[in-house]
Amino acid sequence: MTAKSQKHWSGDVRALLRVGKGFRLSKVDPAATPAYGRSKKHAADDLIAGSDELDELQERLYAQSRMPADEGQEPPSVLLVLQAMDTAGKGGIIRHVVGSVDPQGVELAAFKKPTPEELEHDFLWRIEKRLPAPGMIGVFDRSHYEDVLIGRVRELAPADEIERRYGAINDFEKKLTDSGTRIVKVMLHISPDEQKARLMERLERPDKHWKYNPGDVDERELWPAYMDAYQTVFERTSTDWAPWYVVPANRKWYARLAVQHLLLNTLEELDPQWPPADYDVAAEKERLAAT
Amino acid sequence: MTAKSQKHWSGDVRALLRVGKGFRLSKVDPAATPAYGRSKKHAADDLIAGSDELDELQERLYAQSRMPADEGQEPPSVLLVLQAMDTAGKGGIIRHVVGSVDPQGVELAAFKKPTPEELEHDFLWRIEKRLPAPGMIGVFDRSHYEDVLIGRVRELAPADEIERRYGAINDFEKKLTDSGTRIVKVMLHISPDEQKARLMERLERPDKHWKYNPGDVDERELWPAYMDAYQTVFERTSTDWAPWYVVPANRKWYARLAVQHLLLNTLEELDPQWPPADYDVAAEKERLAAT
Repeated sequence: MTAKSQKHWSGDVRALLRVGKGFRLSKVDPAATPAYGRSKKHAADDLIAGSDELDELQERLYAQSRMPADEGQEPPSVLLVLQAMDTAGKGGIIRHVVGSVDPQGVELAAFKKPTPEELEHDFLWRIEKRLPAPGMIGVFDRSHYEDVLIGRVRELAPADEIERRYGAINDFEKKLTDSGTRIVKVMLHISPDEQKARLMERLERPDKHWKYNPGDVDERELWPAYMDAYQTVFERTSTDWAPWYVVPANRKWYARLAVQHLLLNTLEELDPQWPPADYDVAAEKERLAAT
Repeated sequence: MTAKSQKHWSGDVRALLRVGKGFRLSKVDPAATPAYGRSKKHAADDLIAGSDELDELQERLYAQSRMPADEGQEPPSVLLVLQAMDTAGKGGIIRHVVGSVDPQGVELAAFKKPTPEELEHDFLWRIEKRLPAPGMIGVFDRSHYEDVLIGRVRELAPADEIERRYGAINDFEKKLTDSGTRIVKVMLHISPDEQKARLMERLERPDKHWKYNPGDVDERELWPAYMDAYQTVFERTSTDWAPWYVVPANRKWYARLAVQHLLLNTLEELDPQWPPADYDVAAEKERLAAT
């Protein structure tokens, strides 16, 4: 990892935030800023530096997809999966991290409560329809993981169906990875107190009232059940091909920098190249000059 | 129009660029910078100032759509239609103007050569499927106008069918406007020489080779035919409810500022408001505090 914007990081963000064997969500401090060696006042500058790198890597990824890939292989794409409790900052990640690259290279999908039509199909049906095309950066604002999170906590499906889904997710993500999509799964982790402060701010500011939903308070009662459901998700679906990253998110500036670096590292590994011309450059210069 | 970023404009951009009676495309200087009183070196700062305003207006538009609109009326949306000859800068508008707002409030649709399935349907079939949802800013990178531009120039449909389409477009856009969508139709106007220089740059820079297509040179031969087709489009489809704007685009910095202002003026007219709470704010504060 040689990114310029990497220089203020004391370690490999991916290694530090990755959910591995023995991971316990309850041991993660949502207010921590692992591996970032600077304070909040430098975060904005560092985010901009990272944005410039991300911008070029995204354009290369897109450009590369315009040429044929190896036999049986799609040109690569990236899929960022965002999961979190309400107010944890998914929207801010989309706006400030993803929003810094060319929107023509991004495909956003926000998954709300399933429609009656969606409920008639397998839970992955609506997900498959929103996968990023080759060369694109896809972003899932919520995802198929809702079906084993709220699905489990609110008992929206029978226990054996919930159980079946972990395996189905792993198979699905494996197939996706094999066909060229790099999956970056992120849980933004805030504390209940931080959520309370953020909800209170929505109640105190008239320009934020529309973001508040009385149901959010009811959902807070279920916090421990959600944390248990996340812990199970991590144990069952943090795989070699699609690991989870838990990003401490009480400090929004840290969470944005960290997710930006997870994306940067993923793209650097893909190392997309400007495709060579599939036409005769010298001949085209002559033709063009003659017009 | 009281926008802060408006202060360096000597006139109403919309009035100046709007296609009205007696408009002749051939009289428009693609290198002009109408109504903008400053030089290129200030353009970047002015674009940023405008971005901040656009950002807030977009968020208000989105927020407003979360509350019910008047009976039989959808909450408003905005649709920016971009048409231009190759290299005129549609991509730059999307990246630098539209890309400055929250991507969660934007729906992009790029219309390429129709698929066989699309060709089996009326030309508006694929268009209707990509209209922006209420509260969103939709952007069409090419549009239904291709069906009366390349469609006419390359004779992709019988003459009477092309003829029918102008009226069909006007009816379609009227219905759309009546149901709450503000349509902003922009043609980015460059000169043939400017296009030549831009294509040559793509041939000279290996990181731009992928953007060059030998067909672009063939299309240049048809320049006068395209200009005629645009002139006819303007005469037949610049309506009171959905007028065309022709934006001189030889200077990219001017075109971006001008389109930004067309969007700003449209949103200022809509004047979207933060929706009031549809719950008891004081009671919610108490409930939240008790958690």
